[in-house]
Amino acid sequence: MLLAKIRGTLVSTQKVETLDGLTFFICEQLDIDGKPLGKYVVAADSVGAGVGEVVLYVTGSCGRYTDTTTNRPCDATIIAIVDMLDVDGKTVYNKTDDA
Amino acid sequence: MLLAKIRGTLVSTQKVETLDGLTFFICEQLDIDGKPLGKYVVAADSVGAGVGEVVLYVTGSCGRYTDTTTNRPCDATIIAIVDMLDVDGKTVYNKTDDA
Amino acid sequence: MLLAKIRGTLVSTQKVETLDGLTFFICEQLDIDGKPLGKYVVAADSVGAGVGEVVLYVTGSCGRYTDTTTNRPCDATIIAIVDMLDVDGKTVYNKTDDA
Amino acid sequence: MLLAKIRGTLVSTQKVETLDGLTFFICEQLDIDGKPLGKYVVAADSVGAGVGEVVLYVTGSCGRYTDTTTNRPCDATIIAIVDMLDVDGKTVYNKTDDA
Amino acid sequence: MLLAKIRGTLVSTQKVETLDGLTFFICEQLDIDGKPLGKYVVAADSVGAGVGEVVLYVTGSCGRYTDTTTNRPCDATIIAIVDMLDVDGKTVYNKTDDA
Repeated sequence: MLLAKIRGTLVSTQKVETLDGLTFFICEQLDIDGKPLGKYVVAADSVGAGVGEVVLYVTGSCGRYTDTTTNRPCDATIIAIVDMLDVDGKTVYNKTDDA
Repeated sequence: MLLAKIRGTLVSTQKVETLDGLTFFICEQLDIDGKPLGKYVVAADSVGAGVGEVVLYVTGSCGRYTDTTTNRPCDATIIAIVDMLDVDGKTVYNKTDDA
Repeated sequence: MLLAKIRGTLVSTQKVETLDGLTFFICEQLDIDGKPLGKYVVAADSVGAGVGEVVLYVTGSCGRYTDTTTNRPCDATIIAIVDMLDVDGKTVYNKTDDA
Repeated sequence: MLLAKIRGTLVSTQKVETLDGLTFFICEQLDIDGKPLGKYVVAADSVGAGVGEVVLYVTGSCGRYTDTTTNRPCDATIIAIVDMLDVDGKTVYNKTDDA
Repeated sequence: MLLAKIRGTLVSTQKVETLDGLTFFICEQLDIDGKPLGKYVVAADSVGAGVGEVVLYVTGSCGRYTDTTTNRPCDATIIAIVDMLDVDGKTVYNKTDDA
């Protein structure tokens, strides 16, 4: 799993039918210290996340292993909203501080 | 999922039989600001896309999870034509402007 | 499989339900001489590992092939705690020395 | 899918039994303008390709989705011989010219 | 599939149960001219390979498609010992010369 910040949204009307109803977020991958890595992925949401939030996402076939994305062509899916990251004994990210 | 612009087509007569009838597009990956990244992938079409369009594609096993590509050896498949991209609250791509 | 050192933990309350009960570690990939590579992944634990330990992890669909992670969206899973690494006939890592 | 030129062959007698009868080609990945990218992969053949030909190959689980490779451990498989590549309205590769 | 030279071994006692009995080798990826690429992977053995040998390995879900690794979390598996590599009509590697 990788860390990302949700930076925006993607809108599409002409798409594979099974994707109807899914939300697609533009996510920028983060390093563990919260620094943007300049790499982007479009991920389907499965947890009710929103723009600006720090999230955890899966890639590959695991992208289909949520109730929201079962058997759908989603190779990147947000599976958790991050509350806190501890690295080397220090809290490097706390959602409360982010608000 | 990743963003790409369809740059061209690939023609092949001697191929795996199950690929008959599929359209293969040469796609250049785009950054979220629409800048070409210089990376290419050949993707199967599942949405009726055309050369010049900005699309969303999946890779890996998810490439087989559309009606068009089921059980076919497609590790990259176009799943949506992009209408609009919003990043940091601004519209960075709008298909209407692109026409 | 890749080598990593567990550097920290991730806490999330709003997540895919099937992830309940899993421990997520922030892992830094190691080179074979134990040098940190500066690349990070968040991995689910399946062996009772702890912060500071050198571990082996799998990625992709294999991340779901442990008793702990079956059918869960885990694309990175810790599958072993490393006791010893021998490279070119020399022991380059020994867990006992690490204690 | 990615483009490659077949540069050579690999011979192995001590191998997984299910690989018996497969041909393994050393393939160099090509850019869309036909420029070698300096990246190599060993791919199983499923279309009767030969050294020197420009081909399309799949990676990952899709490598098993041909009649030749079903359930075999092939994570890279040649699925088509390329006849023609059109990019930005120009023919950048034509197998006929290559002969 | 990728080429590698087996550089060493990994020992682990605390691991996923289904991994019992597998041999894990530290493999360094090779270029087609036999030059080490400085990239490492830990791969499970399925062919009776040994340290120092040049081998072919698969990654991803294909790592589970050998008799030795079925349904085990192995995302990198050695599937063949390389006898000979021919590139551009020349033999660039011959196991006999290596002995």
